[in-house]
This record gives sequence, structure tokens and C-alpha cells, in this order.
Amino acid sequence: MEYLRMQKAELEAEYRKEKARYDALCALGLSLNLARGKPETRQLDLSNAMLHTLDDGNFICDGMDVRNYGCLDGLPSCKALFAELLDVQPEQVLIGGNASLNLMYDLIAKAYTNGLLHSPRPWSQEPAIRFLCPVPGYDRHFNLSLSFGMELIPVPLREDGPDMAVVEELVRDPAVKGMWCVPKYSNPDGFVYSEAVCRRIAALSPAAPDFALMWDNAYCIHNFDGPLAALPDMLSLCREAGHADMVYEFASTSKVTFAGAGISCMAASVENLKYLLGLLTFQTIGFNKVDQLMHVRFLKDRETTFALMARHAAILKPKFDAVLDALQREIAPTGTARWNRPKGGYFISLYALPGTAKRTHALCKQAGVTMTGAGATYPGGVDPEDSNLRIAPSYPPLNELRQAIEVFCVSLKLAALEALLRHSAA
Amino acid sequence: MEYLRMQKAELEAEYRKEKARYDALCALGLSLNLARGKPETRQLDLSNAMLHTLDDGNFICDGMDVRNYGCLDGLPSCKALFAELLDVQPEQVLIGGNASLNLMYDLIAKAYTNGLLHSPRPWSQEPAIRFLCPVPGYDRHFNLSLSFGMELIPVPLREDGPDMAVVEELVRDPAVKGMWCVPKYSNPDGFVYSEAVCRRIAALSPAAPDFALMWDNAYCIHNFDGPLAALPDMLSLCREAGHADMVYEFASTSKVTFAGAGISCMAASVENLKYLLGLLTFQTIGFNKVDQLMHVRFLKDRETTFALMARHAAILKPKFDAVLDALQREIAPTGTARWNRPKGGYFISLYALPGTAKRTHALCKQAGVTMTGAGATYPGGVDPEDSNLRIAPSYPPLNELRQAIEVFCVSLKLAALEALLRHSAA
Repeated sequence: MEYLRMQKAELEAEYRKEKARYDALCALGLSLNLARGKPETRQLDLSNAMLHTLDDGNFICDGMDVRNYGCLDGLPSCKALFAELLDVQPEQVLIGGNASLNLMYDLIAKAYTNGLLHSPRPWSQEPAIRFLCPVPGYDRHFNLSLSFGMELIPVPLREDGPDMAVVEELVRDPAVKGMWCVPKYSNPDGFVYSEAVCRRIAALSPAAPDFALMWDNAYCIHNFDGPLAALPDMLSLCREAGHADMVYEFASTSKVTFAGAGISCMAASVENLKYLLGLLTFQTIGFNKVDQLMHVRFLKDRETTFALMARHAAILKPKFDAVLDALQREIAPTGTARWNRPKGGYFISLYALPGTAKRTHALCKQAGVTMTGAGATYPGGVDPEDSNLRIAPSYPPLNELRQAIEVFCVSLKLAALEALLRHSAA
Repeated sequence: MEYLRMQKAELEAEYRKEKARYDALCALGLSLNLARGKPETRQLDLSNAMLHTLDDGNFICDGMDVRNYGCLDGLPSCKALFAELLDVQPEQVLIGGNASLNLMYDLIAKAYTNGLLHSPRPWSQEPAIRFLCPVPGYDRHFNLSLSFGMELIPVPLREDGPDMAVVEELVRDPAVKGMWCVPKYSNPDGFVYSEAVCRRIAALSPAAPDFALMWDNAYCIHNFDGPLAALPDMLSLCREAGHADMVYEFASTSKVTFAGAGISCMAASVENLKYLLGLLTFQTIGFNKVDQLMHVRFLKDRETTFALMARHAAILKPKFDAVLDALQREIAPTGTARWNRPKGGYFISLYALPGTAKRTHALCKQAGVTMTGAGATYPGGVDPEDSNLRIAPSYPPLNELRQAIEVFCVSLKLAALEALLRHSAA
């Protein structure tokens, strides 16, 4: 029965029942983690063979000894591989180190110290820098921005992408210098931007000439339920709309090969890359080409890479199902929360009864289950509704995941019941 | 016979002789490179076994799966290894990606965007930032600084380190925010700072509270002739002098394992690291721990690492000898240049007759031998004497090196003879 239709006595009875369950779960002394989108061991094992791709002792690729210095923009073969996966041109690709977050950070840092290609001046010399943040979104994007002192402006994220009427209005402010997007299987909602929204984003005419569309295509090939969702090549859309230099796309193999030892890439217009390589040459002689060559030999092409992703999906799907089944069984009847059924990515986003997300998080923690902090999916960690919670089912083994999600469901119910009982008392 | 004692007719005869040699060398159509301190293939081969250190399938180190996310400051075992090599404490070590240059760049970038631990404000908000540059020095240090808009102030480098009377005077300017040092086997001179100079540097009381001593210990274990030179632990010296947070030390395995696929480290006070890790957490989840573990298992400890360096030395020593022998045979009798006999590092620094370095470089280029640009060892590429030339003997095989150095010697003589003939004509 739905909690919102219950009388006080019914709520109290339900509370006693769930509290008893909760106490029993606490007594188990659990230590489980649903906080971070980390692959589990079996997923990492899928790529162990990558470490043997140089066993033939052939270290030459594209005419270079990959062990030596050089090659600032990455091995041509590696650029070609990413170009194939992202539907862009090899000359639009720069290969980085083991983390695309680092490439994003470096881009923003260079905007502050030197300016981007079309910046009138370095961002450090601007009175204010504002960035649009479709919410809920990825906490590391927001915190990266805040570390530079940016003002973050939340924009509602809908099932087909950011609320474009709001975005179109906001970019008229010349201090608005960019927007964070996770366009496919968004973190945390698992939404995929529609082609119509992508075209509308590409057609933006921001007042800032150096507006940076931070297109974090982190889950570009990360479907686990059904076919890979379509997403247009944003570099082409922006070029066609006359804004070739507006977009910077990011991707990595962190959730393809090894989470901590993959390789990253940035795709951008040739003009943008030329400008950025002119600065990157002061920073490094080149990123790790041994890692690049291992990836080239292991992932080979689109077909081989997609076959690997299917093996990831086979591990991930049962975990997402376990969470969604539990939510359906335990929470749906209470009518106190809604959530999405993602077909790719690493998260399930749940909207609890307003005002109960933090309490749910605290109850989980007390019972030994670490969740992403309530509010973390909003700039500055402040969810105005105190409603959104992010569930990351990938890391724990299935048996631990089932326990953790039970703790989560019971905590969610307790938090809702507490709130409703307070309300009925008032 | 010394050129400076020759009569005009003798100079003309010598010129005709060397010009004939030069023309013959040009006719060979050589394409040789003495420009960059790159290890050669046999040196890279010394570390191929590193790529097999994970063949046992054991990816756990310090309780972590190195393939997964996490561990911002680096594997404890890897920190311990670098601490042993640098004579510092493990808690003073941060492990980075494949290039220490990138760690240096990031530190300066953070100084500009956020400020260092004791900065009154970010450097981007200062009217001017000045940096001291012992000269000749490493072009990438200077160019990195220039890319941020710094003013570079040359300081004479002596055999025992920077001219400290000059340094002590200059640091009274609060806009002087740091100094670049390669304290052991300096690039390009191969000098080793004396303990007395190190102590005098540690005792500096710069007007800038956030003065950054950039201590690039790039060649910390890179001796090839005789025992390893001693260098005091600068972190200890600075702490003892009451300036624990003034020094940032850098090192890497680029010239220990693979030039393009080593690992880097920064050593600094615990307080500095705490502050910097607070910013680094916005930039990355962690650097590549698979690479770190491979290094830990391959280099093991000081003894194993030093044994590897001895094998590098056995390859490098004959190359340095070939260059030094040629200079002794061809150039010493002319009295037109002086040079150092380094016992470690990657370079030989030569001082030609003032006003002839650029011409020597051009003659080499015309004959198919690429040298580091004349002036590159000075801030902004301007050697006021047009005298210093940097020779990097490591990359070419010995037979090519002998040819290249012959071209260099003949070019050096021709440039000197041209200058002397112009002088005698005037």
C-alpha cells in the first residue's frame, strides 16, 4: 500500500516492521559500497590479455619505438582507433594519459592560464566565469569547476537532454563560458540526449566567443541492455552549425580495459587541437605510448571492442537487474520514490520523497553501506529537493549487492516513514 | 697550432683544408641527430623484462587491485622505492604519470590558478612573476615558464652551482617566485652542486613567501664515469634551515626504464603534499598504478636499480668518450673552444668562440647533423655570447655518432676560421 495513503497507525506499524528489519541488518556488521562506478574484478580480468600484446618484443608502431620519447598527440594508430569508436576523424583526436578527467582539468586550467582558442583573455583575468550544469550530474565535473572558482548554474536535465529553453537564455550572458554534458547514458540518470537536442546545442550562439561545450562521452559504447543507443557526432553537428570550435569531446578506456590504467582521448576541431598542442608541448614530451600500443593491439577495431563491451554487459546486466528488481518489489508499492531503468552507463538514479535523501544516506551508512553522498549530483553538493540518490551497482559481487540494496530499500522506507510520521504529528 | 696565434695566410690554408673536409662530409648525405637526450634502443631493451613482471596474474599491491581506480598519491610500495632512491621519506613522495615535466608544469599551473601553500594569492593575480634560471640550463624549464608569461632572470651557473651572491640579491624581489635547478649532472654542463651551495640555497630567505625551488633531480642516479656523485637531500636541508615548504624535488624513470613510459615523482614536505593533493583530487582519481607496480617489481630496490644503471653506463660511456676524444683531438689544438667532461647525465656542454655557436649549428644542419639550437640553453633562446652548444651523444649508434661528431668538429672549426678571417680582414 502506498505510504502517502496510510493513516498514522498504519505508518507506525510499517515503521516498526521496517525498523526491526533495519536493526537486524545493522547487526550483520556489513561493510558494502554502492558509491563509485568502479568495475569489478571479473570485468578487469577481461583485459588481462592486453598486458601480453607486446610479448613478441615488437615495440615499433607507426614507425616509432613506443618505448622512447615523442609523439605529443598520440600514436596515429591509437588516434584512428578512437576516431572509429567516436565517429570522428583521426586528425580530430588527441590521446592523453590514463584519465579523461585529467584532460578535462587540463583544458579548463589552460583556459584560465592562457585562454582557449577564441578567448579575448585568460579566464583568470575575467571578473566571473559561469558554467552550466545539467542536473543531476557528475560530481567530479562540478567539483573540478568549483576548484577554479567558477559559479555553477544548474539546468534541468530531461530525458532527452538539458532544458534547452533555459540553456538558450543563459548563454546570452558573456560570463557563461561553458556547459558540462554527459550525453549518452548520463551520470546518474542514464539519459541519452536526443538528436534534436544535440542539434539545438550545436546551434547555440553563446555570447562568450570561447564557450566550451564539455562533451564527456564517458559511456559512448557502454550499453548493457539492448543495442547501443545512437548519438550524433557532435563535432560534425557543431561544424555544420558554424561552431566547429565550440565542442570538446572526451572519452576513455577506463571502463573498457582497466579503470586505473586505460587511456584517454579528447576529440576537437583541428584548429582547437593545433592551438592546444601548442600549449601541451610545454607540459610534456608525450603521453605513455606503450599503454597506447597495448590498447591498439588489444582493442584492434570497433568490432573487437564491441565484443569486449558485450562481455562487460553480461557482468553488469544482472547487477542492474538485481537493483531494479529490489526497487520494484520493495519501493514501488510504497509510492515514495521514482527511478530510471538505464540501458547503459554505470548508475541508477533514484528520486526519494523530497527531504529524505540525506536521511536515507545516513541510515545506509549506519548499517554499513556507503552510498554516494546525497546532493553530490548537484553543484556544490546541494540538492534543493534533498531527493536524488545515485546507486552504483557495478563493484560489489552479486551476493553483496543484494544485501546492500536491501539495506538501501529499508533505509529509504524508514526515512520516508519518519518524514510522514513527523508530518502527521504536526 | 692555436687559431688565435695564426697569421692570415695560415688561417686561409686551414680554412681551405677544413672546407674540403666539410664538403666531402656534406656529399655523404648524412641524417644524424645529436639534439635530444634520448636513450638508444639497447638502453630501452634493458627494461623489456619489466613488461613481464605481471605475468603471474597477481595485480594486488599494498592491498589494492592496481588495475582499478584509486590511490591518488601512488602505490605505497612505489613511494617507498622512490624515497629510497632520493634519500627522502615515503610520506614526502607523490607518484605521477609518465613525465616529471608534467608534474612540474602542473605545479606551476596550480600556482597560477590557485596559488601554492603559502601564496598570498594565485600567481595569475600578481602583476609580474619572475623566475631565476641558472644558465646554461634546460630549455624545457625555460619554455614552460615562458608559456605562463613569466619573466626569466639568468643567473650564472658555476661548477659548484648557481652564483649564490647573485641569487641572494635577486630573491629580495618579492616578484621572484622561484628558481629552476638541475642539481646533479646539470643539463647541459654536467655540474654537481656542492653541499655548501645546497646549504646556501636552503638558507635563502626570499621575499616571496611562496618561493618555489624547482629541484629537478633528473639525473639523480645517472652516473656513467666513476662512482655516483653525492648530493645532499634538499628536503632535509630546507627543513633544517626553517624552509621546509620551499623545495619541490622531481625525478623520473624516463632514463632508467622507458623514456616515454616511465613513471615520475615529486618529493616535497608533507604539508606541501597535503595541500597539493587537495587540488590534485579535482584533476584525477589516480595515476596509472599498473605502470607503478611494474616498476616496483622490476626495479625492486636501490641495489637492483643501481645494477641497471651500471648497464646504462656501459652503453653511454663509450659514446661520451667518442665525443670527448674527438674534441680533444680536433678542437683542443685550435684553442677555440672549452668543454666539460661530465661524469653523469646526458650532455656535453661546449663553449665555442663567442659569436660562432649559431654558425656552427647552421653548418652542422647543412651537413645533415641536427644539433640542439644554439641559444636553447638560455631563457628565450638567447645566449648573449652566442657561444654555448649542447651535444647529446646518447641516441645514435657509435658509428653514426663518430660521423656526427666529425661533422660537428669540422663545422666548429669552419665557424671559428670564418670569424677570425673576418676579424683579420677588418
